Amino acid sequence: MEGRRKELLILGLLKEARGGYVSGESISQTLGISRTAVWKHIQTLRAEGYPIESSSRRGYRLSSTIQPFNAHEIKGLLATECVGRVIHFQRCVDSTNTMAVVLARDGAEEGTVVVADSQSGGRGRLGRRWYSPEGVNIYTSIIFRPPLPPQDAHKFTFLAGISVAETVERYIPERPALKWPNDILAGGRKLGGILTELSSEADRINFIVVGIGLNVNMDIKGLPEEIRDVATSLKEIAGRDIPRAEVTAGLYYSLEKWYKRFLKDGFQVVLERWKDYFGFEGRRIVVKGREVVEGVCMGVDREGALVVTLPSGLSTRVVAGDLEVAD
Amino acid sequence: MEGRRKELLILGLLKEARGGYVSGESISQTLGISRTAVWKHIQTLRAEGYPIESSSRRGYRLSSTIQPFNAHEIKGLLATECVGRVIHFQRCVDSTNTMAVVLARDGAEEGTVVVADSQSGGRGRLGRRWYSPEGVNIYTSIIFRPPLPPQDAHKFTFLAGISVAETVERYIPERPALKWPNDILAGGRKLGGILTELSSEADRINFIVVGIGLNVNMDIKGLPEEIRDVATSLKEIAGRDIPRAEVTAGLYYSLEKWYKRFLKDGFQVVLERWKDYFGFEGRRIVVKGREVVEGVCMGVDREGALVVTLPSGLSTRVVAGDLEVAD
Repeated sequence: MEGRRKELLILGLLKEARGGYVSGESISQTLGISRTAVWKHIQTLRAEGYPIESSSRRGYRLSSTIQPFNAHEIKGLLATECVGRVIHFQRCVDSTNTMAVVLARDGAEEGTVVVADSQSGGRGRLGRRWYSPEGVNIYTSIIFRPPLPPQDAHKFTFLAGISVAETVERYIPERPALKWPNDILAGGRKLGGILTELSSEADRINFIVVGIGLNVNMDIKGLPEEIRDVATSLKEIAGRDIPRAEVTAGLYYSLEKWYKRFLKDGFQVVLERWKDYFGFEGRRIVVKGREVVEGVCMGVDREGALVVTLPSGLSTRVVAGDLEVAD
Repeated sequence: MEGRRKELLILGLLKEARGGYVSGESISQTLGISRTAVWKHIQTLRAEGYPIESSSRRGYRLSSTIQPFNAHEIKGLLATECVGRVIHFQRCVDSTNTMAVVLARDGAEEGTVVVADSQSGGRGRLGRRWYSPEGVNIYTSIIFRPPLPPQDAHKFTFLAGISVAETVERYIPERPALKWPNDILAGGRKLGGILTELSSEADRINFIVVGIGLNVNMDIKGLPEEIRDVATSLKEIAGRDIPRAEVTAGLYYSLEKWYKRFLKDGFQVVLERWKDYFGFEGRRIVVKGREVVEGVCMGVDREGALVVTLPSGLSTRVVAGDLEVAD
C-alpha cells in the first residue's frame, strides 16, 4: 500500500509537469526514496498504461496526454457516492459479469464494480458471445442490492440503457437509440449492450449484476466480417480517440443517479426517459422470442413489455425476444 | 463401481432373507468373492446406515426393518423420469440449496437433487436459520430449468407447497395447511418450509433451486426451547417412525407431476390445488413485509399475491411478507 501511495505521488508530479521532464533526483528527494526505488515505481506505472519516457540526462516525463484506462484514472474522475467506490480492475477477465456474480455471492457491497480491458469469454443475452478485444472498449459490471422482488429485475436493463445513452451522447453528434430490450445503437449499428443477471429468493433479490459492454475506440475496419457490418464505436462516429476512464466514470454517475431515482420515484420516470431514446415506435417489426410476432411497434407498456399491433388489428405484449425492423 | 454393484447384490440377499441370517460362505460363493471381501462390503453397507448384525456361526442379517436414508434407498422407490434421477446424497452439508446452486452453475441437469442427513448452515427465507439436526429429517434441494422469465419463480414455492402437502398427508390423520408464502403446518405448528432461489437473466431463468426442509422423525421434546413450541414432525403426529427414503421418493414424484402440469396447463391449476390447503381465508391476519398490513385475509389472487381487506374496507395486495394470525 505504501508503494502504491508513492507511485501515485510520482504520477502527480509528472502530470503537474504537463509533458515536461521531472528529474529522477528531484523525485527521489521529494519522496525521500532512492533513485532505484523511483525507477521501480516508474516501471509499475508503465505497466498500468502510463506512457512514461525516460532520459538519463533530463529524467522522466509523461509523453502523451492520452488517458490510460485503469482504476486510478476512473477513481480520479468519480463523482458518485456508491457506484464505483470499490473497483476491481482487470487487464483480462473471463467475463466481468461472471466475476461480479462471484464477488456478490461472497458479499461484495452494493456499487462494487468490475472493469476489464478485455474479456476472454464476454457474454451477451441468452449466452451469446460479446466481442471483447483489448485496449479499446469498456467492459464493466456493477453490483446492485435493491430491496425489490425479482419481478423488477428487468427494469435495470432500462435504467442502464438510459445511463449509457446519456453518457455516450456527450461524445457523438448524433443521438443514440435504445433498442428493446438491451442494445444501444448509433446510426443503426450496435454501440453497446447490457446484460442484466440476478440471484434471488422467490420474493426478494439477493443481488443484481448489470453488465455493460461499450464500443469506445474500436477500429471497425479491422473487425471480423460478421461484426463489421453491424457494429460501430464512439471513435468511429466522433473521429477521435475517446478517454475510456472518463466515459466509465460518467457512466457510473448516470447509473447511480437513475438507480436512486428509480428507488425513490419508481419505474415510470425511468421508462419516460427511456422512451426518449426508443427509436422503433410506428415501425413494422418482427420480434423473435418464444413465438415470432410481426406487426407495428406501439412502444412499451408500464412494465416495459413491448406492445405490437398485429395485422388483425389486435395488440399483443411481448416480454422477451429479439426485435428487428421489418420494413 | 464394481465394488458398489457387489454391495447392492449383498444388500439384496440380506433383504430377501427378511431378517434371517445369510452365511458369509453363501454370499462369498454367490458373488464369487473372498470372505474378506464380503466382510469389507458389509462394513461399507453399515456405514451407509444399514443395521447389519454378524454372527461368526450364522453369518449376516439385517437386524431391523427400519429403512436407512441414502441415495440407494431413495432410488429404489423412485417413480419419476427426471426429478431425483441424479442424487447427490450428503451425510452433512452446509446447506442443500447452496450446494445445488453450485451444481446448477456448473451445468447440472434439470431434476438433479441434493439430499442431506443434516445441514450445518441450513437456511430459511430471508437468510433465517433452518434447524437441521442429523438422522431424523429430510433436507433436499431440486434443480429446475424452466423456460420462463424470473417473474414466474415464486410460483415454484406454490408448486412445492402442494407437493409437500400431498406427500405428507399420506402419513398423518390430519390435513396439513399451507401458510403463505412458504410454510407447511400441521396443527398450527411448522412441519416444513420451502426456500426457492433462482439465477436469471433479466428475461429468462437460468435455473431455479427449490429447497425443502421437512420435519420427519424429529423428537419435539428434545428441541431447543424457541423451536419446541412452534415445530412439529410427522412422527410426533403419527406416533411412529416414518421412512424418510419413501417420503423423499414420494415428494420427488409429486414435484415432477406438478412441475409438468404447471408447464403444460399453467399456474392456475397449481393455484387451485394450493387453495385447498390454504387455511387462512376469512381470518384476521397481520402481514409483515416492507409495510405492516393488518386486516381480513381474502385469499390469493391469480399471481399468488395475498389479498387483504383493510379496516377501511379497501383491499390491498401483498407480494412478500410474513403472515401471522391476529385473532
